[in-house]
Amino acid sequence: MRISELAETTRVPVHTLKYYLREGLLMPGEATSRTRAEYGAEHVERVRLVRALVEHGGVGIAGVHSILSALAAPPPSRHELLGVAHCALPTPGDQGPVSEEVADLVAELGWPVWPEAPAVRALSAAVGAAREAGVPLSAGSLRRYAEAMADVAAVDLDAALAADGPAAAMHTVVVGTVMVDPVLVALRRLAQEAVSARRP
Amino acid sequence: MRISELAETTRVPVHTLKYYLREGLLMPGEATSRTRAEYGAEHVERVRLVRALVEHGGVGIAGVHSILSALAAPPPSRHELLGVAHCALPTPGDQGPVSEEVADLVAELGWPVWPEAPAVRALSAAVGAAREAGVPLSAGSLRRYAEAMADVAAVDLDAALAADGPAAAMHTVVVGTVMVDPVLVALRRLAQEAVSARRP
Repeated sequence: MRISELAETTRVPVHTLKYYLREGLLMPGEATSRTRAEYGAEHVERVRLVRALVEHGGVGIAGVHSILSALAAPPPSRHELLGVAHCALPTPGDQGPVSEEVADLVAELGWPVWPEAPAVRALSAAVGAAREAGVPLSAGSLRRYAEAMADVAAVDLDAALAADGPAAAMHTVVVGTVMVDPVLVALRRLAQEAVSARRP
Repeated sequence: MRISELAETTRVPVHTLKYYLREGLLMPGEATSRTRAEYGAEHVERVRLVRALVEHGGVGIAGVHSILSALAAPPPSRHELLGVAHCALPTPGDQGPVSEEVADLVAELGWPVWPEAPAVRALSAAVGAAREAGVPLSAGSLRRYAEAMADVAAVDLDAALAADGPAAAMHTVVVGTVMVDPVLVALRRLAQEAVSARRP
C-alpha cells in the first residue's frame, strides 16, 4: 500500500508517518519509484505500536528507540529478557540513590532482587516525592501496596510465559509493562469507588 | 521569609516561584513594601505540593488548579469526597465511550459503580490502547489485575479514613492517588524481577 493508505489504515496522519520515518521509528517502505514507496503489514503493526507507546504510554522518542532495539534483539533466557526490558523502559528516578526505608522494605519482603537495582532507585524516588507532597505513607501501607503489586507481576509473568517464543515474550514484557500501567491506574480509581461504596 | 529564602527552603528556583505566583498556584505573600513580600510556612507547604504534582505526578497546570480547588472546599461526606477528588484528577480517556468488554468486567466483578463513570471510560480507553499495541490481555488477566487493584484501593481508603478531618482526607485521597501511582509503577517493576527470580 502507499503512504496515504497506510495513514488511512492506521488512522495516523501522513505528516506523522513521515516524522516516524525521519526519526527511524518506522522502517522505510520498498521504493517503487523516486518518490513512491510501498508499505506492508509489518509497517501497519509498527505504526500501531509506536503510536500506542507515544500517545498512551507516555514514552518519549528516545524511549521508543530503546524499546524497538530491545524488541529487535530478544535474549534467549527469560530472566535476562526482563533485565533488557527494564533497561529499555523509561522509569523516572532509576539513577538516583536508594533510600533507607525502601532498602528496609525490600529486605522485609524478602524479595530476591539486587538491592541497587534501577527499580529500587525508582521506588526510592517515587516514595520520596509522595512524602514531599505530604502523602501519609506508612511502612505498613507500603508493604500492602507491594504485596498487591506482586499479584500484578504474577499476571505479567504468566502472560510472558504464554508467549510464543522469545520475540513474542519480549513484546509482551516491554509493551505490556508500559501499556498496562494506565490500565492499572484506571482500575485503581474504579476500585476506590467500589471499595468506598461497599464500606458502611 | 523573603522569596529568595522560600526558594532556598523548598529548593525551587525564584523564577519558578514567580511562575507559580503568576499562574495562581501559589498564594501571594504579605506585601511589606512595593517590591517585597513575606512568605510563611503555608507557602512552603504549597510550593512542595505543587512541585510534587507537576514534576513527579505529571499533572498539568489545569490539573493542579482543579486539585487545589478541590482541596480548598472538601465536601462533608466521605463518599462525595471521592467523587470530587476523581473529578479533579486528570485521567486520560475519561470522556470516551465504554467498551463492551469493560462493561462485562465490571458486571462480573459485581463492583457497585456507575456503569458510565469516568473511571469506566478511562479503563475502556486504556484497555483499547493496550490491545492496539498488541498486548495480549485476556478477560482472566484483567480480572486478576482488578482484584489486585481492589487490594490497593483498600489501602488508599484506610489512609483516607485515618486522616484528621475532611480537609486532610481530601488531601490524602487527591494527592495520594496522584503521587502513589508512580510508587505502584516502580513496585510493579521490582515485583516482576522478584517473581521472575523466584520461579524455576
